[in-house]
Parts: sequence; structure tokens; C-alpha cells
Amino acid sequence: MKIGIVGLGLIGGSLGIDLRACGLEVIGISRHQETCKIALERGIVDEASVHLSQLSTTEIIFICTPIAAIFPTVQKIIPYLSFETIIADVGSVKKPIVEECSPLWKNFLGGHPMAGTADQGIDAAQKDLFKGASYVLTPTENTPLECVKKVAEIVQLLKSNVYICSPDVHDRAVAWISHLPVMVSASLIQACMNETNLEILQLAQQLASSGFRDTSRVGGGNPELGVMMARYNRQELLRSLFQYRQNLDQLIEQIEQENWDNLSKILSDSQKVRTRFLS
Amino acid sequence: MKIGIVGLGLIGGSLGIDLRACGLEVIGISRHQETCKIALERGIVDEASVHLSQLSTTEIIFICTPIAAIFPTVQKIIPYLSFETIIADVGSVKKPIVEECSPLWKNFLGGHPMAGTADQGIDAAQKDLFKGASYVLTPTENTPLECVKKVAEIVQLLKSNVYICSPDVHDRAVAWISHLPVMVSASLIQACMNETNLEILQLAQQLASSGFRDTSRVGGGNPELGVMMARYNRQELLRSLFQYRQNLDQLIEQIEQENWDNLSKILSDSQKVRTRFLS
Repeated sequence: MKIGIVGLGLIGGSLGIDLRACGLEVIGISRHQETCKIALERGIVDEASVHLSQLSTTEIIFICTPIAAIFPTVQKIIPYLSFETIIADVGSVKKPIVEECSPLWKNFLGGHPMAGTADQGIDAAQKDLFKGASYVLTPTENTPLECVKKVAEIVQLLKSNVYICSPDVHDRAVAWISHLPVMVSASLIQACMNETNLEILQLAQQLASSGFRDTSRVGGGNPELGVMMARYNRQELLRSLFQYRQNLDQLIEQIEQENWDNLSKILSDSQKVRTRFLS
Repeated sequence: MKIGIVGLGLIGGSLGIDLRACGLEVIGISRHQETCKIALERGIVDEASVHLSQLSTTEIIFICTPIAAIFPTVQKIIPYLSFETIIADVGSVKKPIVEECSPLWKNFLGGHPMAGTADQGIDAAQKDLFKGASYVLTPTENTPLECVKKVAEIVQLLKSNVYICSPDVHDRAVAWISHLPVMVSASLIQACMNETNLEILQLAQQLASSGFRDTSRVGGGNPELGVMMARYNRQELLRSLFQYRQNLDQLIEQIEQENWDNLSKILSDSQKVRTRFLS
């Protein structure tokens, strides 16, 4: 089978490595000649080109560009494709992408491989990036079953765990466990920055250890990714933030009123419930 | 030198192991005969007893009980001590403890070794627990210099990094980097629990990975520790929570108003500032 990959960054490059290792033929497309050269040198693709026309003979195409470029890319490639060709994307928000792309192409299937590293670009591409990770596919009621089946087969080759749900359900679920934590965590860093007493601020910086490191990690991550989450999943993120603010207020209230039994109950519940998210 | 340790849990037990390894003689006190037996069997102490009178010949005593028991313990042991004996505690909040204990005993010195594990009790005691960790000493203007010097020497034997500041400064610094993260993190778990759509909740639980795991870790920790932080460091914790809520509101406002440049600036600042807490 011939696979096309548009965008040879961390995700696209890693996809190429694994799919070639499974014996598939991979055609990579990048806007940059230099990236094409690296992809060929590293054996990430069988062929690399800056021309979208090279995709004409592929059967499944993965669009691995940044979110904002997905729709324009689909528009540009469809003149070269036969109607059976499947277009899949890997963007981390699904509803806006699926709503834009599905009307353009019957065999379009949204997807979100939940894998990544702190690094980006083709140099970060690595084998087995998707192994054991979740990979969500988000068909609509109009997506042909055959299309979902074919992409799911490819995803299983990557040894990912496949989940299938609607774009809406995906976006709301990732708001809770991926996008909300970024905002909660960034606000923690912001709050600490507001300490005006230098002695206290410096001591806090010196004493910060694993608790602060873990709680602040995703809030101190790539700012572009954070803005992208907020921009494309705005409604669901805001819904989760409003709920969060309500829970924070409840917790503050217990401390203000020295209601230690209630605080203890909240913290015990949190301890119990957390395990359900980590099994 | 003869060292007394009252309370043979994770901290007291680990202290005993390291100080004995440095050649000091360690007398351990526990309320439970069984704990005394384990402490002797594991070589954590030279002598173990349930009787506070055994402390009469010690030169420095570390009170390693839960916070609520520190003041009553100091009250109970002083009848047995000579005036030169130094009493040090290891509670994770300092101002209320120091305010209570200092008037009782001239040679009292508050301290906070910032080390721990998820486990508790004497079975969790381990060597080198304090190695490389921060150990804060919190003298007041009335604490004899000699007292600070002697405890600091012991702490250096543990290969901890010693910091010296007032109890106030300590409590405000740990509110930022230790107590606030617990409440921020617990509220995240609470918020996710509020998802009423079962399909979304289950998917969120299945998709949660390292980002959620790290951000929720301290909020899903020991509830008693969380209540203790709130109870004994209430004022500073509330101050940090009010500041946090303000920063959260600012961030929500940027997302509501689709002010992506401002959001980008906040997230970029967070990324930069975080590194100062982790050097």
C-alpha cells in the first residue's frame, strides 16, 4: 500500500519511520527541500517531494501539518487525488477540522495520535513514537465505514490503542485531561511570579522541587501549542475552566471557613478519583 | 554526641539511620513498643523507648511527630532536659510551631527538611533521604546563635542544603511552591469529576496520560497532609490562592475575548519563568 504524508515534522516523520518498517511505501511531502533531503537520508520516506502532485498514486494520506494548515492543505491536494483516496489528519482538536474538511472530501477521517515529545521537527522524529499511545479516530455519521476500517488498520500497525468517537466527544474529553491542565498549570506559574518580596521569591525558587516541577510542567510548555488548544477548542476549554473555577472556589471556601472535615472529604475524593484516570 | 528523636516515622526513622551512620549515638522515642522494636531490629537507633525520660542525657532532640503533636511533646519532654539541650522540630509549617514552642524553651529551633516519599511510617525509613534535599532552619531574633550553628552542623552531616530564614518567610515561600500546587491540582481532579456525560468521562479517563498525571499528582496525594497544610498555613495559603484565582481569571478573560496575542504572552512568560524555579 502507498501512503502519503504531508508535513514531515515530529508526527509525520515518526509515522513515516514506523509505516516503512511495516513494509508500506511512504511518499513524504514537505514545503522545504531541505526537510525532504533529511527525510530521504534518514530513511523516513521512500520518496520525498515539495510537489503535492506526487500524492496522486497514494491510497491513504496523513495530513501532519499544524492545525491552521490542515484545511488549506486538503483544498490544495484534492485536485490530484482519485475519489477512493482517504485523507486522514492528526490534529489535536477535531470538531473544527472535521467540520471544514468533511464537506470537501467524502473519504476524510479526523484522527488524533496522543503521542509527542518536548522536541519538534523532523530531527525529533523517532520510531515507535505511537506504540502504546492512544490514537483517537473521529468519524461523523457520513464517514464511510470502509474508510474508518482502513485507517484503523494502519493505526494498529503502529501498536497504538485505537478509540473511536465523534469529534465533539473527543474535543470535550481532551479539554478535561489535556487542555485544562495546561491553563491550570500556567496560572500556577503566573501566581508565583506575583510575589513581590524578593527574599520570599528567591527562597521559593530555591525550595521548589518535584511537587512544583510536576504541577507546573505542562503550563511551562510550548506556548504555541497552548494558544492552539485555546483557539481551536475554545468552547470546550472555557466550559472546563468555568467548572474548574467553581471547584477552586469551593475549596477556597472550606479553607476560609476552616471547615476541615469538608476539605478532608474533597482531598480524599480527589485521591480516590485520580486513580480512575491512570489505570 | 547523643541525639534524641521523638517520633520514629519516615522522617524520624530516616534521620536515625543517617545520624548513626555518621557515628552519632541515637536514642529513639515512640509511643508504640512495636515501633521501638522495629527501630532496634533495623539498626535505626542505638536505644529505643516509649519513655520520654530516656531523653535526659541527649544534647539535641529532633521532634518528628505530626505537626499537631509537636507543642504537646515539647511540653512533656522539658521536665527531663538540662537547659543546654537543643530542641529542633521538622514540621512542614513553621510560624505557628515556633510561636508556640519558642517561649517554652530558649534553645528551640524550627526546621523543615523538604524530603519525603509517598510512603509513611518506620517501614518507609531509608538512608540518604535528606541527601541533596533542602533543609530550612527558621530561627527567630531570640534564638541563640550557638543553637543554630549546632543544628546546622547536624543537617550538613545529612548532606542537605541548608537555608536559614524567618518562620514567616518560610511559610510564605512554601505556600507558593508546595501548598498552593496541592490545592490547584486537587481542584483539577474535582473539575474533571463533574463531567456528567459518561461517554466523555470514560474517554477522558482512558486518554489521560503524562500531562494529566503530572498536573494531578500532588492533588491526589495524602489528604491528611493537605488538610494540615491548610490548617497550619491557612493565611499564606489563602493569600496564594487569591492571587492564583486572579491569574486564572486573567487567563480565562484572554480566551473569552479571543485575545491570542495576550494568551501567547502569558504562556511564553510562564515557560521562561518556570526555569527559574528548577535550576
